[in-house]
Amino acid sequence: MSEFDIIREVFAPLAADADGAFGLGDDIAMIDKGPFVVTKDAIVAGVHFLPKDPLDLVARKLMRVNLSDLAAKGARPLGYFLACVWPAGVKREQIELFAQGLKEDQDHFRVSLFGGDTTAHRLKTSPAVFSATFFGAPPRQGVTSRAGAQAGDDLYVTGAIGDAGLGLKALQREEKFTTVDKASLAMRYHLPDPRLSIGAAIAGFATASIDVSDGLIADAGHLAHASGLRAEIDAVSIPRSTAAGSWVARQKNRWKALAEVASFGDDYEILFTAPSSMRRSVTVAAKAAKTEVSRIGSMKRGDGAALLDETGREIAVKSAGFDHFKK
Amino acid sequence: MSEFDIIREVFAPLAADADGAFGLGDDIAMIDKGPFVVTKDAIVAGVHFLPKDPLDLVARKLMRVNLSDLAAKGARPLGYFLACVWPAGVKREQIELFAQGLKEDQDHFRVSLFGGDTTAHRLKTSPAVFSATFFGAPPRQGVTSRAGAQAGDDLYVTGAIGDAGLGLKALQREEKFTTVDKASLAMRYHLPDPRLSIGAAIAGFATASIDVSDGLIADAGHLAHASGLRAEIDAVSIPRSTAAGSWVARQKNRWKALAEVASFGDDYEILFTAPSSMRRSVTVAAKAAKTEVSRIGSMKRGDGAALLDETGREIAVKSAGFDHFKK
Repeated sequence: MSEFDIIREVFAPLAADADGAFGLGDDIAMIDKGPFVVTKDAIVAGVHFLPKDPLDLVARKLMRVNLSDLAAKGARPLGYFLACVWPAGVKREQIELFAQGLKEDQDHFRVSLFGGDTTAHRLKTSPAVFSATFFGAPPRQGVTSRAGAQAGDDLYVTGAIGDAGLGLKALQREEKFTTVDKASLAMRYHLPDPRLSIGAAIAGFATASIDVSDGLIADAGHLAHASGLRAEIDAVSIPRSTAAGSWVARQKNRWKALAEVASFGDDYEILFTAPSSMRRSVTVAAKAAKTEVSRIGSMKRGDGAALLDETGREIAVKSAGFDHFKK
Repeated sequence: MSEFDIIREVFAPLAADADGAFGLGDDIAMIDKGPFVVTKDAIVAGVHFLPKDPLDLVARKLMRVNLSDLAAKGARPLGYFLACVWPAGVKREQIELFAQGLKEDQDHFRVSLFGGDTTAHRLKTSPAVFSATFFGAPPRQGVTSRAGAQAGDDLYVTGAIGDAGLGLKALQREEKFTTVDKASLAMRYHLPDPRLSIGAAIAGFATASIDVSDGLIADAGHLAHASGLRAEIDAVSIPRSTAAGSWVARQKNRWKALAEVASFGDDYEILFTAPSSMRRSVTVAAKAAKTEVSRIGSMKRGDGAALLDETGREIAVKSAGFDHFKK
């Protein structure tokens, strides 16, 4: 197997409909029109995915964590550059399985491969690393930054929080679930659903937005910090799936369990703020995008992010979210 | 040390003059004008650099291998996205040293950091991986592809071939050199010099071009394949530094030594073709760009790349260049 055969035979078909990619026959691609929203996220075996995860799912997760960044800005995805660092001795079938996952999600999200780099570690034991640089077209209204929230704004989140974290615990057998719950939670870990429709729908009136990747509390803190404000989250209003709800119900300390769910990370939901005068617009946008949206708190003067119980008291949070340098 | 402090304190200053980067305060960057020439190259500890290499040099090598791709297309560099995967337990000082190298070359090449991702392996022993996606502005005349060479075109290469490969051998103590030669060869391994000036100067008349990263013979083969032709290289006309020349002179089998030099890789010179009617233009361009350019062969009907001796006979080549899946 040669690096150049792999590029020509496995990756070039993924770039077939991208004019400026020259069928991956050059080191560069021509990207013609702008402006672009661009994001770059890398995923690493043992950190962002499990070393034994099927490689088509890994490829789709790579695409989806990047698409989630575009979704939070209301951007329409166009295509991506890809760098792969494989363990030494990788088999062609593994690369083909990875490319198959890319193809499925390229078709699903209507994006193309623009270019990239394929290389390998010196050792079989070194963890695979995949990095994508994704291009999107900004919404007509311009992208929503993290920094535009105003004191008094409502705080919203899409979908449900905590599933991916529980899915990881299920896969690592740290927690027990019914077969059905385990399957649904594991899928939420493997295949996040980038909230592209709702991201585009709120672009006109959301004052700030961010995707929840590090953990709900941590990312609320990032949004609050950028906006020079404090985010207050009502713990009981955080949306949970049935499976996550039943896990919380099984825990001895309910508030501690709610705090954990709000700091797992890997949710890839969108957290955003909007003035309270826009509540009707949020409802309409959620319906148009066929995406559940929950109001979970509000922005206050101050700083940081706090999780509040039913009486408005702050719940102690052990870790607000994932930090690659602290784990 | 927190991931977010590192981004704010160490990397954000590198993005200070890039308007759309929001001071790295968001997951995305806005890239406004096009068209762009875009390239993406990753470098891996133990493969593209030595695990003990000083991290400022590693950072500069990352920039330069990407800039070399832009140089081969005559593009003017604008800026880049960066993904870092550090070994677990990386020290802040190491990240700062890496950022210092980025800063030096940002100033030298007048480019900015646009955005990126910083993450870490789960283990201390996992190799660092750095990936950059570099943006450039295409030359007015349009980019030179790999595929435009015509039968009869001259084949040229910039600078000198083989230094970086010998530098690596010197650093790994596989070959002995004088102190002076070792230093100059090692620098050519650590700090390739992207040939941006000559790349821009030949954009008007070069029929095909590629940067020499895998090895002169291998990359000549890539250019020839893309153009549907055969590249014939006169071994004795390949430019060599004094240090590389004296290494060749010390080898028992001169032709074997010349073949090795032509397949080391990591040269980051530009290999290009031009019609023989353009010889005067090549000379003028080389002078304007203050870059040595050597005519080393020509394009013929057929396929592949061949190294020829003084009598025009093909020299046996053990390996045409570096292949990440074969090494």
